[in-house]
Amino acid sequence: MLKAGPSQEEIRQHNLGTLLRHVHLGGPVSRTVLADRMGLNRSTIMALTAELTSAGLVREELPKETGRAGRPSLVVRPESDRVYVLAFDVAVDRLVAARVGLGGKILDRREAVRARAGADLDDVVEVLAGLARPIHREAAPDSVCVGVGAAYCGMIRPGDGMVRFGPNMGWVDQAFGAELGLRLGLGLPVSVGNEAHLGALAEHERGVGIGFANLVYLHGDVGVGGGIIVGGKLLDGDGGYGCELGHMIVNPYNGRPCGCGSRGCLEAEVGEQALFDAAGRASELVGHDGIRAVVDAADRGDLAAQNALDRIGDWLGIGVANLINLFNPGLVIFGGMLRDIYRGSAAQVHRRVAANGLVISREKVQLRTSALGNDVTLIGAAELAFSEILASPLEVLARTTS
Amino acid sequence: MLKAGPSQEEIRQHNLGTLLRHVHLGGPVSRTVLADRMGLNRSTIMALTAELTSAGLVREELPKETGRAGRPSLVVRPESDRVYVLAFDVAVDRLVAARVGLGGKILDRREAVRARAGADLDDVVEVLAGLARPIHREAAPDSVCVGVGAAYCGMIRPGDGMVRFGPNMGWVDQAFGAELGLRLGLGLPVSVGNEAHLGALAEHERGVGIGFANLVYLHGDVGVGGGIIVGGKLLDGDGGYGCELGHMIVNPYNGRPCGCGSRGCLEAEVGEQALFDAAGRASELVGHDGIRAVVDAADRGDLAAQNALDRIGDWLGIGVANLINLFNPGLVIFGGMLRDIYRGSAAQVHRRVAANGLVISREKVQLRTSALGNDVTLIGAAELAFSEILASPLEVLARTTS
Repeated sequence: MLKAGPSQEEIRQHNLGTLLRHVHLGGPVSRTVLADRMGLNRSTIMALTAELTSAGLVREELPKETGRAGRPSLVVRPESDRVYVLAFDVAVDRLVAARVGLGGKILDRREAVRARAGADLDDVVEVLAGLARPIHREAAPDSVCVGVGAAYCGMIRPGDGMVRFGPNMGWVDQAFGAELGLRLGLGLPVSVGNEAHLGALAEHERGVGIGFANLVYLHGDVGVGGGIIVGGKLLDGDGGYGCELGHMIVNPYNGRPCGCGSRGCLEAEVGEQALFDAAGRASELVGHDGIRAVVDAADRGDLAAQNALDRIGDWLGIGVANLINLFNPGLVIFGGMLRDIYRGSAAQVHRRVAANGLVISREKVQLRTSALGNDVTLIGAAELAFSEILASPLEVLARTTS
Repeated sequence: MLKAGPSQEEIRQHNLGTLLRHVHLGGPVSRTVLADRMGLNRSTIMALTAELTSAGLVREELPKETGRAGRPSLVVRPESDRVYVLAFDVAVDRLVAARVGLGGKILDRREAVRARAGADLDDVVEVLAGLARPIHREAAPDSVCVGVGAAYCGMIRPGDGMVRFGPNMGWVDQAFGAELGLRLGLGLPVSVGNEAHLGALAEHERGVGIGFANLVYLHGDVGVGGGIIVGGKLLDGDGGYGCELGHMIVNPYNGRPCGCGSRGCLEAEVGEQALFDAAGRASELVGHDGIRAVVDAADRGDLAAQNALDRIGDWLGIGVANLINLFNPGLVIFGGMLRDIYRGSAAQVHRRVAANGLVISREKVQLRTSALGNDVTLIGAAELAFSEILASPLEVLARTTS
C-alpha cells in the first residue's frame, strides 16, 4: 500500500554501475574487497561481476602473488583496451585529443599547438576531428567507444555543450558540442564541460582530492578558472555556470583590465600577463614556459622575479582566503599554470591566508598542487564521457554497440 | 540476492515525515493535493494522515467552502497549538525567545533589548531562560515541546552548539548550546545554528527563496553573515563554518579594520559603522534605527546620506557581483539590516553587479529583500528545532512525551 522502493531491476542496474565505478576509479580489485566496499555479500558480487564480464566491461584474473594460503579471491580488472572514450581538451594554446580506456588509462594522445589569436569554431572542430581520426582508427577492431567528452576554457551550457562565453578565445554562443559531434560522425553526443570544473572532478576522483567532500580547485590557463566541490558534488548553480572564481574582484579600484570586461578580477591580477608585466618580461617566453622561466629565475635569486611572484602571490592569497572563508573546504588545489605560480609564491599565499582567512575556517585546510599535471582537464573530460556508462553499464553498452 | 531497498517500515516513516513537512510548510492542504504532491494514492494518504492524527500532530477538517458539487476532500491541518518548539535568537543587540507551533505559527514571543558590550555566556543564557520560562509555563497543559533551536551571531560547531567565534560579542569557544539546554531544564538538546545560515533556510522554506535551488542570503546584524543554498542544501563546508561572505576581502589595501582581525572585509565596508562614518553620524542613533534614519534622510534628499549609501552600495555591489560569479544563483536576498541598506543603495548595487558580474552568471538572477522581516533568524531557529520531528514524527513524539 505504501510507495515502493526501487525495483529489483533498478537495484541491479545501480549495483552494476557502482561495481564498475569501483573498478574504473580504483583499478584492479579483489571480489572480497568489492564485497566489503559495497556492503554486499560475495555471491552477489560474483553475479554482478559475471554480468559485467560477459558484457566485456571487466575481466577476472588470479592475482599474481597472494602470500597467503588458501584459494585467492579473483581480481576484477577493467577492460581498458576494449572499452574506451574519446576525450578532448581545448585550452587557450593547445588542442588535445585522446583515447582513454575504462579505468582511466590514456591509450593514445595527440596534441596540436596553435596560435592563440582568434581561432573560430570551424578551425577548432576541424583540428580536433583530425586528431581524433587516427586515434579512433587505430583502436582494436573489437573495441568500443562508449562516450565522448570535451573540456573547454569557457562557460558551457550543460546539455548541449554550447560555449556561451569563452573570452580568451573570443567565442560567444558557439555550438561547440553539437559541431564536434557532427564532425566526428560517430553517432555519439559530445558532453562538454568547463575545463576547471572538469579539472576539479578529475582531482576529486583521481588526484589529491580523493576523499575530500569540500574542495576548491583553481585552474590557471591564460585565465583563471575554478571548480568547487561542495558536499561531494560540483557546484553548478542555476545554469551550470558557477565556480567563476577567476572573476572574483580582488582589486576594485586599481585593478588590471580583465578579458571579461571588468577590472581587478583575480584572473587579471594573477594571470600570466600580470606576472610577466610585474617581472618585466613582456617580450620573452609566453604561456607555461614563460611562467616556469620566471619561477626558475626567482629560485636562482633573481630579485625582480621574486618580487613579481610575491606580488602575484599576494593577490592569489587574497583570493584563496576569500574562498576558504566562503567554502570552509578541506583542500585547496592549484592546477594548470597555477601549479608553478603557487610553487613560486607559496610563502606569500600562506601569509595572506593567515592574515585574511578566519582562523576557524582555515584551521584544517590544506593547500596542494594538482596531482594530475598537464592532463588534468583532459582526464576530467574523459571522466565526463564515462559518466553515462558508469550510471547504466549494460544499457549504454547495448546502445553504443548496436 | 541483490541488496534490498528500504524496508516497508522505513518507507512508512519517510512518508509520514514528508506528509508532515508538507502540512508544516504549506499549511492546511487537502488529501487530494497531498496525494498529488507526494505521488501516492489517496488510500495511502488516508492511512498516513490517520496515523499522524491519532498521534496528535495533525487534524482533519471539512473545508469551509468548496464551491463544487460532491463530497469535498478533507483538509489536513497542523496541530499548531498542541505541538511546538522553543526558538531563541541571539543577535548583537537583542535576545528573543518564542514558542512556535507546528506550521510555523509564532504563538508567544518575548524580547530583551540589551547593552552591546561584553555579555558573557552566563548572562545570555540566564536572560534567554528567563524569557522562556513564562512562555513554556503558559503553553496549554496538553501541548508538547518537540525541540529547541537557537540562532547565534557567530560561528557554531554543529552537533553541540559550541560558539567557536562570535567576534561581535567577544566570544571564543563558549558552550552555548549545552549551557542553554542545562538552564532550560527540559531534558531536550538545543540545536544551535549561525544566524545567517538559519536566515537562509527560513527564506528558502518560507520566504522569497521558496523554489530556488541556488540562492545567496546576506544578513546584516552589526556584522554581515551569509547563508548560501547550493543545489537545495545549505553550504556547510567541512566543519559547518561555510558561507562567511562577510569576511570576503573586497578592499585589500585601504580597507577598514574588521572585527575578525583582518581588513577590508565586506562586513567592515558595509556594516553599520561604515555607514555611520560615511554619513557623519557617529553620535546619533545606532543599530537598525540608526540605519533607517540614514536611509530616510537620503530619501528626503540629504546629500551626505545619499553619498554614504552610494559608497556602501558600491562595496555591497562588489560583494554581490563576486557571489553571483561564484554561485550562479537564481536569487540574492538582503536580510536583517541589509534590507534597509539595500533599499537605500539598490541603484548602486545594480550598477556594480552590471559592471562586475559576468553577463551569463547574472542573466537570470533576481535581487530581493527578505520576506520574513526581523524574525527571519528566529523563524530559522524554529525550523532547526522542527527538523528532527519532521524526519521521524512518531519516534520523536514518543521520545518527547515519554
